[in-house]
Amino acid sequence: MAAKFFSERNLRFLLYEVFDVEALTRYDAYKEYDAKTFNMVLKAAMELAQGLLYPVFQEMDQHPPELVGDQIKVHPSIRKFLEECGQGGWIGPRMPIEWGGQQLPQMITHTCEFIFAAANYSASVYPGLTTGAAHLILSFGNEEMKKIYLPKMLSGKWQGTMALTESEAGSSLADITTEAEPTDQGYYKIRGQKIFISAGDHDAVENVVHLMLAKIKGAPAGVKGISLFVVPKKRLDENGRLVSNDVVTSGIFHKLGYRGSPIAQLSIGDNDDCHGFLVGEPHQGLLQMFQMMNEARIGVGIGAAAIASAAYYAALDYSKKRLQGRRLSTKDPAVPQVPIIEHPDVKRMLLFQRSVMEGSLALLMQCGKYADLADVLTGDEKERNELLLDLLTPVAKSYPSEMGLLSISQGLQCLGGSGYCDDYPLEQHYRDMRIHPIHEGTTGIHGLDLLGRKVVMKGGRAYKLFLEEVQKTIRESETLETLQSNTQKLKDSLALLQKVTSHLMGVREKGIPELFLADATLYLELFGIVSVAWQWLVQATVVVKALRNGLGDAEVNFYNGKLFAFRYFFEYELPKIEGLAKRLMNSDGLTVDIKPELFSD
Amino acid sequence: MAAKFFSERNLRFLLYEVFDVEALTRYDAYKEYDAKTFNMVLKAAMELAQGLLYPVFQEMDQHPPELVGDQIKVHPSIRKFLEECGQGGWIGPRMPIEWGGQQLPQMITHTCEFIFAAANYSASVYPGLTTGAAHLILSFGNEEMKKIYLPKMLSGKWQGTMALTESEAGSSLADITTEAEPTDQGYYKIRGQKIFISAGDHDAVENVVHLMLAKIKGAPAGVKGISLFVVPKKRLDENGRLVSNDVVTSGIFHKLGYRGSPIAQLSIGDNDDCHGFLVGEPHQGLLQMFQMMNEARIGVGIGAAAIASAAYYAALDYSKKRLQGRRLSTKDPAVPQVPIIEHPDVKRMLLFQRSVMEGSLALLMQCGKYADLADVLTGDEKERNELLLDLLTPVAKSYPSEMGLLSISQGLQCLGGSGYCDDYPLEQHYRDMRIHPIHEGTTGIHGLDLLGRKVVMKGGRAYKLFLEEVQKTIRESETLETLQSNTQKLKDSLALLQKVTSHLMGVREKGIPELFLADATLYLELFGIVSVAWQWLVQATVVVKALRNGLGDAEVNFYNGKLFAFRYFFEYELPKIEGLAKRLMNSDGLTVDIKPELFSD
Repeated sequence: MAAKFFSERNLRFLLYEVFDVEALTRYDAYKEYDAKTFNMVLKAAMELAQGLLYPVFQEMDQHPPELVGDQIKVHPSIRKFLEECGQGGWIGPRMPIEWGGQQLPQMITHTCEFIFAAANYSASVYPGLTTGAAHLILSFGNEEMKKIYLPKMLSGKWQGTMALTESEAGSSLADITTEAEPTDQGYYKIRGQKIFISAGDHDAVENVVHLMLAKIKGAPAGVKGISLFVVPKKRLDENGRLVSNDVVTSGIFHKLGYRGSPIAQLSIGDNDDCHGFLVGEPHQGLLQMFQMMNEARIGVGIGAAAIASAAYYAALDYSKKRLQGRRLSTKDPAVPQVPIIEHPDVKRMLLFQRSVMEGSLALLMQCGKYADLADVLTGDEKERNELLLDLLTPVAKSYPSEMGLLSISQGLQCLGGSGYCDDYPLEQHYRDMRIHPIHEGTTGIHGLDLLGRKVVMKGGRAYKLFLEEVQKTIRESETLETLQSNTQKLKDSLALLQKVTSHLMGVREKGIPELFLADATLYLELFGIVSVAWQWLVQATVVVKALRNGLGDAEVNFYNGKLFAFRYFFEYELPKIEGLAKRLMNSDGLTVDIKPELFSD
Repeated sequence: MAAKFFSERNLRFLLYEVFDVEALTRYDAYKEYDAKTFNMVLKAAMELAQGLLYPVFQEMDQHPPELVGDQIKVHPSIRKFLEECGQGGWIGPRMPIEWGGQQLPQMITHTCEFIFAAANYSASVYPGLTTGAAHLILSFGNEEMKKIYLPKMLSGKWQGTMALTESEAGSSLADITTEAEPTDQGYYKIRGQKIFISAGDHDAVENVVHLMLAKIKGAPAGVKGISLFVVPKKRLDENGRLVSNDVVTSGIFHKLGYRGSPIAQLSIGDNDDCHGFLVGEPHQGLLQMFQMMNEARIGVGIGAAAIASAAYYAALDYSKKRLQGRRLSTKDPAVPQVPIIEHPDVKRMLLFQRSVMEGSLALLMQCGKYADLADVLTGDEKERNELLLDLLTPVAKSYPSEMGLLSISQGLQCLGGSGYCDDYPLEQHYRDMRIHPIHEGTTGIHGLDLLGRKVVMKGGRAYKLFLEEVQKTIRESETLETLQSNTQKLKDSLALLQKVTSHLMGVREKGIPELFLADATLYLELFGIVSVAWQWLVQATVVVKALRNGLGDAEVNFYNGKLFAFRYFFEYELPKIEGLAKRLMNSDGLTVDIKPELFSD
């Protein structure tokens, strides 16, 4: 198995050279940190990833969780990992120090998440979910809740989950039927079923804390009637002992990949004895849950980029070692075979992977920066960063997920028949990755979110801010001679995006949402390509300036490699918007018009 | 599990309405057949697929072959299937009746292969390999060989294989080291190792007959020194009894998918007692093997289209039954949820699958027609059909394989989280499909084959014939008013293909093969899209004419569904050539120039 699964050099490049995470230490919230302490955090994450997570990457896949009785048993390394996470501050690392967090900026915590997920995506999900759940309690829970749950969760003793999906309500949360009946005892009685609950039950923790959506009896229909509850697997009795809370694990899902994480089906309140604790006000559940969902969406993007990273380095390692064939200009069979990385088509496949993966990661870091600035700034500037993050969240979730699939597929392809066999990690990466376009909202849902909500919200304000951000990059890069031709390409691409968007806004005015949104998924794809091209130009601008300095060979190679990946993206990926735009400009309603019966014969 | 895995109506449409298989019965070779007898053959294939293959589709995946001692044990249904194949004439169905074949045209045998592979791809491979191996013996073997091997193989008692790959020689057959030492006993002593041998050993047959590439001692280096041998697992002794032939199964590969077929590693002649029998003349092995390889490549295309078909019907079935969400124009949560097939984005995903899969199948049928005509015609007309088949073989192998992956991925996506779980067949289809861009030559190899060999061979003759074929379709379709706009699009696309090809021919003249062929894979992709668009226009022309007649509802729905899939292809898929052409016109040597060390950091 390849020993390298991410590039430390690239992480430093993004954090310090491109996105200047150090600048955040000027603000009060991060004043205790500097580059040195950030690096200590990163180093600790790398050690944990390399020492504990990567060694069991394959083993956790081969020995997936099992439901034994009504308890899910997971790989023993998870208990150890969660203990380490608790001790090392890896659960809720952004949380305030007073609650046991590390109060780190998101750019740093995203980077650590990336390292964990590249080592072992399934394992990385456990603390990630607890982090999101704890943050939800911190944001909206009362003081008592915080005192009961946060210390246990942040220490890794209790698992957090997000419990949304039901069998008749997957993409349509309006249709959940889990019910909460008020009592006069300060809790609600919960009754229902949940499916697809990640880390929804397992034996590496003492307790599981579900952040659960349910409807209070008599609540309005649809999303307006959804409330948020804390529903623990075990609740505390009067004596402070954990007792069963009538949450029963009734099933476990057998999955294509991502097998190290248990995905549970839960029966809640079958014995009329499940206590749920309302978080915040009634009927605000979906709004509150969006905090966790949005964080989880960025988390999915990070997970996708991370798996793509591990796959890229495995493919690269193989391509350097595997001898096969000769240069196309060599006909003589007596000449020794060359490593396949000498073949242009293999280099193309590697450049594709690198440009997708590093471009995705840059976009995610950009989102982290917006989140960090929104946290420390106020007023208009805060809102500006929030809007940019909101707009880009569906893009930063979907582009890495969709393109990561293709990226890993090309990684597998580099290995030929060996890539198809489990002697190499590629086939697992290929399986693990496939969840990402599905969970935390399918790509189709994110297309609707981007075009139907984000682009048009507040009179298109977020969208205009995005255009400004890209134009700012263009103004900077066009002063650099070597970047002029690609800067022009991004200019043209941005103009095409605007042309397509204007066209669609025209369609929107016709008042037929189906027609307006029919190709929202393609719009998301186009938006993603332009966004990642933008991020490549951001990186290239930094690189070109860095190359002006006298540098050692390794540094020159790193920067020149970046430039090739940048050029690759502009030469091979960016042109894909031509075909997309051509289709998007033709809102003929093809997929609206076709009747279901025409699919059969 | 969905009960439907292919459309019988579509097969009849292609065979009788588009490609007029009945016209072949005018020729001597097929004069015994008519539509009625062809249909009996198809009906028998469907019964076998539905009765025997489809029921064990999932079971064979869950209980893959195992190496026990030095014998691979496969699912018990394989023995039954091979017996049925032997009795029903499903092995070597094209072979002459005198050798136990059915002497059927390829269009019919391709259709049967498609039905078997859609039901259970892994199972379909066993008789398919024996067919190709038997055909090789028929074409190049001597009479004694034919008498010994063909009856046993065609009856399903002996398995045939193609034994090419070695651990140091995958894509580079020039580098095989398996050695054949002449004796004066009429056989050669074979020594070597082979890997990735499909159906290379199993317990559902009495014997395995390897059609093996090896080098006779002292042969020229490279491909010119490769000879073809029959190397049975057990040979006949003087008394006509089967005795061990020193071919030992030394390993079995654990694969991502396609798990029902054993892929073996073989040690040959470790005890210096392996007899191999030369097929034809020495050093002609690769040339001879190309017959089987080319057949297998079309077979891979068929297998890919077939898996995509099964996945499409599973996704369609789910999409019709699964209730989720409401129309975008409906905000009222009290309105019942609709089947997801009502959502434009789901219809888009289904149309994508259908247009890729049915377009692929049409292209494969077109290849079958060229093969059939090459068989029955003579002189120039024979050569013309041979050249067209040669040119299109890499396209008909690669387009269904590469696009089939995306097609199945969209099928899985229709099911959301359920698609990721093994309660539904999509995750298996997704795994099974991934072998296709790899085996029988990777997509990269086929790109080189198309651009570096097929397009330029005989002064570009095959390529010119292809252009003529497309132009012929255009001339016919432009007379139909409803097809004029899409006919123009195909005209433009063909012009773009010619422009790109001319550009590349200019690069070729520079004499740097790396530069000329650097983007051959993209050229293959572009060629594939244009070819499938052509095949959709061929189909649409038939459909528009058929719709002039008074037809029942089911027929009208079938034809109108075809027109939507055709329009989808032209609206959503064909525009992809814009981006590809843009890149292909810029032969800047990006992937040639980048040095391996620039990939690291």
